Amino acid sequence: MKNGPIRSVGICLKPAQPQAAGSLRGLLKWLAERGLAVVLDEEAAEAAGADGVRGVPRSELGAAVDLVVVLGGDGTLLSVARALGSRAVPILGVNLGTLGFLTEIALDELFAALDRVLRGEHRIESRMRLEVGVVRGGVEAPPAERFLALNDAVLTKADLARMIDLETRAGGDLVTSYHADGLIVATPTGSTAYSLSAGGPIVLPELEAFVLTPICPHTLTQRPLVLSHSAEIEIVVRSREEVQLTIDGQEGATLQQGDSVRVRRSAHPVHIVVSPFRSRFEILRQKLGWGTR
Amino acid sequence: MKNGPIRSVGICLKPAQPQAAGSLRGLLKWLAERGLAVVLDEEAAEAAGADGVRGVPRSELGAAVDLVVVLGGDGTLLSVARALGSRAVPILGVNLGTLGFLTEIALDELFAALDRVLRGEHRIESRMRLEVGVVRGGVEAPPAERFLALNDAVLTKADLARMIDLETRAGGDLVTSYHADGLIVATPTGSTAYSLSAGGPIVLPELEAFVLTPICPHTLTQRPLVLSHSAEIEIVVRSREEVQLTIDGQEGATLQQGDSVRVRRSAHPVHIVVSPFRSRFEILRQKLGWGTR
Amino acid sequence: MKNGPIRSVGICLKPAQPQAAGSLRGLLKWLAERGLAVVLDEEAAEAAGADGVRGVPRSELGAAVDLVVVLGGDGTLLSVARALGSRAVPILGVNLGTLGFLTEIALDELFAALDRVLRGEHRIESRMRLEVGVVRGGVEAPPAERFLALNDAVLTKADLARMIDLETRAGGDLVTSYHADGLIVATPTGSTAYSLSAGGPIVLPELEAFVLTPICPHTLTQRPLVLSHSAEIEIVVRSREEVQLTIDGQEGATLQQGDSVRVRRSAHPVHIVVSPFRSRFEILRQKLGWGTR
Amino acid sequence: MKNGPIRSVGICLKPAQPQAAGSLRGLLKWLAERGLAVVLDEEAAEAAGADGVRGVPRSELGAAVDLVVVLGGDGTLLSVARALGSRAVPILGVNLGTLGFLTEIALDELFAALDRVLRGEHRIESRMRLEVGVVRGGVEAPPAERFLALNDAVLTKADLARMIDLETRAGGDLVTSYHADGLIVATPTGSTAYSLSAGGPIVLPELEAFVLTPICPHTLTQRPLVLSHSAEIEIVVRSREEVQLTIDGQEGATLQQGDSVRVRRSAHPVHIVVSPFRSRFEILRQKLGWGTR
Repeated sequence: MKNGPIRSVGICLKPAQPQAAGSLRGLLKWLAERGLAVVLDEEAAEAAGADGVRGVPRSELGAAVDLVVVLGGDGTLLSVARALGSRAVPILGVNLGTLGFLTEIALDELFAALDRVLRGEHRIESRMRLEVGVVRGGVEAPPAERFLALNDAVLTKADLARMIDLETRAGGDLVTSYHADGLIVATPTGSTAYSLSAGGPIVLPELEAFVLTPICPHTLTQRPLVLSHSAEIEIVVRSREEVQLTIDGQEGATLQQGDSVRVRRSAHPVHIVVSPFRSRFEILRQKLGWGTR
Repeated sequence: MKNGPIRSVGICLKPAQPQAAGSLRGLLKWLAERGLAVVLDEEAAEAAGADGVRGVPRSELGAAVDLVVVLGGDGTLLSVARALGSRAVPILGVNLGTLGFLTEIALDELFAALDRVLRGEHRIESRMRLEVGVVRGGVEAPPAERFLALNDAVLTKADLARMIDLETRAGGDLVTSYHADGLIVATPTGSTAYSLSAGGPIVLPELEAFVLTPICPHTLTQRPLVLSHSAEIEIVVRSREEVQLTIDGQEGATLQQGDSVRVRRSAHPVHIVVSPFRSRFEILRQKLGWGTR
Repeated sequence: MKNGPIRSVGICLKPAQPQAAGSLRGLLKWLAERGLAVVLDEEAAEAAGADGVRGVPRSELGAAVDLVVVLGGDGTLLSVARALGSRAVPILGVNLGTLGFLTEIALDELFAALDRVLRGEHRIESRMRLEVGVVRGGVEAPPAERFLALNDAVLTKADLARMIDLETRAGGDLVTSYHADGLIVATPTGSTAYSLSAGGPIVLPELEAFVLTPICPHTLTQRPLVLSHSAEIEIVVRSREEVQLTIDGQEGATLQQGDSVRVRRSAHPVHIVVSPFRSRFEILRQKLGWGTR
Repeated sequence: MKNGPIRSVGICLKPAQPQAAGSLRGLLKWLAERGLAVVLDEEAAEAAGADGVRGVPRSELGAAVDLVVVLGGDGTLLSVARALGSRAVPILGVNLGTLGFLTEIALDELFAALDRVLRGEHRIESRMRLEVGVVRGGVEAPPAERFLALNDAVLTKADLARMIDLETRAGGDLVTSYHADGLIVATPTGSTAYSLSAGGPIVLPELEAFVLTPICPHTLTQRPLVLSHSAEIEIVVRSREEVQLTIDGQEGATLQQGDSVRVRRSAHPVHIVVSPFRSRFEILRQKLGWGTR
């Protein structure tokens, strides 16, 4: 991962946020005063509205900058992480609304957080990702066509309210056949996203593990499972119905009977600048309302 | 409900059950020996294979017979009940495989159960149904186009893994807005079907109530809710995504933003012949494995 | 239930609430201005501090007044309801802290709520109670020694972390044997109390039903059960360990192997003055944070 | 851990198993034929009934033998592991009844399993344990007085059905204050024991982690938490009620307000001989009935 001095900063903005223009201009001014080069993504360029400033595709940002600031929510950060791919650029997530699990820094904390980064006083957390490949006709998609998931890979029924059958293996051993609405393979990062709604546990991101959370399983004892990241997970579609594969809730593929999905720990984690202002537990307490019933 | 002497019996068969032909012929012989008229549905007629015997559509059975015997599983009984509509003919459910919650009589118990029915020694349970209407542009479908559900009316996202917003009222009062994968409105009968997989309670069918079970709600405290059957439930689709309405897992409609679904207690319950061989709890213990972990 | 004109008002105060003295004096003045007789319980008398005013035991209040105002929380209202026993006096619950499920009226809404009661414009909800008897040596305690529960009757292990065995029947039929930390029999009113923490559903109080919620059952499929109030529940202690019976979290008895508990619908519901200011669902939304994750 | 050739075998028997005498004699004969020294615990010596054979306390077995065979259930293995303390002797668990999570070898597989061990063809799994210390008056018990838990350390209310308050920290950071019936700190091994009944996930034992599962928490969003084993967990008793600490369901201590419990990963795991006959998942499928509803 890049962790030398920060000389250039990329900025990614959540689409359609006209009200963020002021904050963005403030950030540009702050960075310029400190002599830092800035590269904007297309959304940020449009919101900045400066003449002659052209945004670059997010996928090119990774090669161009030493740090990426994301202004948006968890969804924006997920899509920026995907666009950066295997580029190990640290990401600083700033939430424009209520704090997220990934965007832990509030807008009014941005400059204080950046200050620390510039002085090298920040901490970076490597978040494990999933590499997700689809196997069709016995052939797995080449690495370049595989998905990278920071939160989760989800298999769900594509059609009417019928259950699907998902034969699931870990390290070659049969785990079970899930007869369910679907199955979530989540990272620890993703354990507080969809998996939590489906009844999964909260897994702290310093653990490297897969969380397998069935969605409305017919067998009531098929409870969420936390597995070591070292075993490859394979899920074979056994039912006739089409199955939808969704990555981080944002992209995906349609699977047929006999297709399978292979999930491994990716060699390319995401590098998140940790908020110096609150602990991981404080974010859990705040977002899950642990002070109240 | 018809509850005079049984003079004629309708038989409905689960589709594509060639191995049931022997059982069916045995049943026909048994009924003929007792001088009872028999009417077959199309599946049963085909399996019986007798020359010149023509099956009738299930929807015509209700007017023609005093008792309907269903040979199949819970799914078959659900579809027969729907076809019978408002006709109050008692149904005796015989399971061709493992016992169901609705088909509580095993094949080898069939004649003993029928004997009791013919002697009038049986008990009939009225199972509440839902009347489900779709409102579009402020206009509700006329009664004739409404659905009847014995198990449940389910609203789910039709598309990719995005949550939907379902504003839900009971008796005109706002219950809450569910931001979830979907929402199940179940009868007590349906509480052991899909609702149970989604975390709902088991509600005994002698209670007349609605069970509202959200599917993977984003708000973790939105727990299943059991309401009196006297309050009409109204669910308004507030999100832009298409929403799928499914009745008893078998038929349904597609809803748009602004459409709503109204659920009331139907005036037409289903009349099920209660198994004399085991209690309701014995079926729960057996199907849910309450002797084991 | 008494529902003629209100001429006398009883006041019960949560113990040890010196800060409530001001509110109490305000209430006394308001009632005196309207010519109403007032009877205080011992806590209220002490807090009022008026010379010569003696409080009466809560158990005597029911015979003396036409309405009881409870200043406290849900726990105070539970104990007042128990003290009133079979006396059908309406109770108006005012919460001194955050709103409760039973004390739905805030302190600053008190006079407006009382005004409506005096004008007869209020609505009263009858809340079903449990009558709970202990059977030892085959003999059930006489009615006078039975417990009345507005929320729940709970059987739990009295000792170290060992599970207990509770053979449970409804209407004479075996439901199942729970091998668990304990078992909750809740009313709909109690469904939002301990039962909810143990995984039970929310049951609206207009339904008359028993909710059976096992606490940490060894058998994972033993899910909460909602039963008609017409069937008597019997729970036999089958394990050797002592079992603790607790009523509304406030009083109870110790049970031995072979003892059993019988739970019936009591003939004496509690009469609660319904808040005119918010619906039942609004209280659920507020207390369970249904606007947030 | 001892992993040279096996020259001596210890045998531990579940107490009060007269019907196991035959199996035990068969095992003694089998071991004698192969020239192995045998040391019996007191229960095994009594059941063997051989004249002059004296059993030794389990705590002395570890120093005397190269392998310990446990004949019993998971509870017996837990107590043997505790008695062995820091001695790294491999344990082969044989279940006298239905298979356990820890005693994965059936009686009729015993000789085949031992054969593999003698040939060195077996696999040993190190199972993480908890070291649990009680802090009173700011002083933690010395290492020699700390507990070792293979399954879990559980804090529960000792009294009537009142909730307790447990302020919980991990690595010094406040996690949350649980207002609950109790809190389970489980190892992955213990995740399929009490924690599972309380709603915890299944964590595979190759992962080294703490599972924090609150028991019936008042705050419904306080879901089970899986944490890295590297952070020390500290739980402070904040409520006035006595709190019971229980280790592996078998021993414990009583805590007062202000006392705290510190849980760390023990330096002394338990070494279990892995069954060569079935995978970990097969045991899960079998014990949790994953083939059925």
